[in-house]
Amino acid sequence: MTYCVAMNLADGLVFVSDSRTNAGVDHIATFRKLHVFGVPGERLIVLQSAGNLATSQSVISLLRHRLGGEGAHLHNVPTLFDAASLVGATLREVLERDSGPSLGQGVDLGCSFLLGGQIRGAAPGLFNLYPQGNFIEATRDTPYFQIGESKYGKPILDRALQHATPLEQALRCALISFDSTIRSNLSVGMPLDVLVYRADSLLIPEGYRVSEGDAYFESIRAFWGAGLRQLLGELPELPDQYWL
Amino acid sequence: MTYCVAMNLADGLVFVSDSRTNAGVDHIATFRKLHVFGVPGERLIVLQSAGNLATSQSVISLLRHRLGGEGAHLHNVPTLFDAASLVGATLREVLERDSGPSLGQGVDLGCSFLLGGQIRGAAPGLFNLYPQGNFIEATRDTPYFQIGESKYGKPILDRALQHATPLEQALRCALISFDSTIRSNLSVGMPLDVLVYRADSLLIPEGYRVSEGDAYFESIRAFWGAGLRQLLGELPELPDQYWL
Repeated sequence: MTYCVAMNLADGLVFVSDSRTNAGVDHIATFRKLHVFGVPGERLIVLQSAGNLATSQSVISLLRHRLGGEGAHLHNVPTLFDAASLVGATLREVLERDSGPSLGQGVDLGCSFLLGGQIRGAAPGLFNLYPQGNFIEATRDTPYFQIGESKYGKPILDRALQHATPLEQALRCALISFDSTIRSNLSVGMPLDVLVYRADSLLIPEGYRVSEGDAYFESIRAFWGAGLRQLLGELPELPDQYWL
Repeated sequence: MTYCVAMNLADGLVFVSDSRTNAGVDHIATFRKLHVFGVPGERLIVLQSAGNLATSQSVISLLRHRLGGEGAHLHNVPTLFDAASLVGATLREVLERDSGPSLGQGVDLGCSFLLGGQIRGAAPGLFNLYPQGNFIEATRDTPYFQIGESKYGKPILDRALQHATPLEQALRCALISFDSTIRSNLSVGMPLDVLVYRADSLLIPEGYRVSEGDAYFESIRAFWGAGLRQLLGELPELPDQYWL
C-alpha cells in the first residue's frame, strides 16, 4: 500500500509521500513515490503515485524519457491542466500495453496520481488522477487530496486544514497524518518524502527525506501522543446520564 | 455502514455504537446496533453488530426468542466463551437459511458481532465474531475491538487506550473516535448508543443514547477540534532542512 497527501493552500503547495511498497506482508521494499519535474524560474510539476508499481514506474519513466522531445511533454505543456491530461494519457498508454487479453489476468494494474505545481503566468494547482486517467482539481473548499491508505490520516486533515492554513502548520498537520497512518497500518512506512513549494517562487525545491529515527519527526510523534492524552484528560467531565 | 467499538479494561467494559444503516446514499435509516441481554446480579451480555441488517436482526431475534427455552440460550450458557459460540452458531444457522442456491445471489449476507459482558464467577470478557461465526477474544495487549468503518477512529484508540485506562478516559476516547469517524464518513451517523459496565457490579446498565445536538457531545467536539489545532501550533518548529 501507500499513503500520499498533497495540499494546495493560499501560500503554496505541500507534498508528503511514504515509500513502502508491498506484495503481501513478506515482500516489502522501499520505492520513492514523489517525483519532481521542472524548469527553474518557469515551472514546477510534482507527481505522487499509488497503486501498481510497475504501472506507475512506467508512466514516470515515459514522462521523463520524453522531456525535450518533439511532442508534448511536462516541460512544454502550457498549463497544469494539460500536464494532468498528459499524465492521464500516458497512464492509459501503459495500461493498454500491459493489459492485453493474454496479460494481467487477475492483477490490478491500476494506479492513481496526484499532480501539483505551478507554471509561470498562472496560479499553483493540484490534480487527483484516477486509474482511468481522468482527474479532478483541488479548490478552496477542498484544498487537499490523498491517495492510497487514506482513512487513518484523514480526520486530522479534516479538523485542522483549510485553504488559508500557513505552510508550516499545514506541513506539521501532514506529518501528524502520516504518523497516525504509520502507527495503525503496517503497509505504510518510513522514510517519508517531503516537498514544500512557496507560491510564485518558481523554484525547484530539493525536498527532504524523513528517515526512520529522524530527530524532528520523533519529537513531534512523542509531543503529539502526550498532547492528545493530556487533551483527552482535560475534556469536560462526563455527565451522569452517560453512566446509567 | 456502521461503526462499533468495545473495550475490555481493568475497571470494566465500554461499548459505543452508531445507528446509521444505508443501502446506497439515498436509503438511510436509523437502527440500534447495541443489544443488551442479562440477569441482574448474575450476568450481563452486550452484543453489537455490523454488516447485513437482515442477518444481524435475525440473529438477535432468534437469541431473544430462545431465552428461557429448553436448549442453550444467552441466559443459561455457563461462560462467555459459550455465549460467543452460541451467537456464532446462530449466525451460521441464519446464513444457511438465507443463502441457498436460489437466494442471496450477489448479496453480501455477512455480519460481524462484538460480544462483551460478565457472568458471575468469572472475569469480564470481550469477543469479536467474524462473519464465519468463529471469534477471537480481547486480551491485555489488545483491549479493544472495532467492527464496521474502523479506520478513521483507530489512531486515537491506538495512541490513547490501554488496559489500565480508567473508564471515564476510555469513554471520552471512544467518543472522540466516533467524532473523527462521523466527520470523515457519511455512512456512520448519530445517534450513538453508549453503555458502560463496571467490572463485578453484575448490574444491567440502561445505557445512554447520544442524540444529534447532545450538549456534552457537542462540547467535546468543539473542545477537541480547538485543542488539536492549538496542539498543532505548539509542535516544535520545523528544522530548516524540511524547507529546502
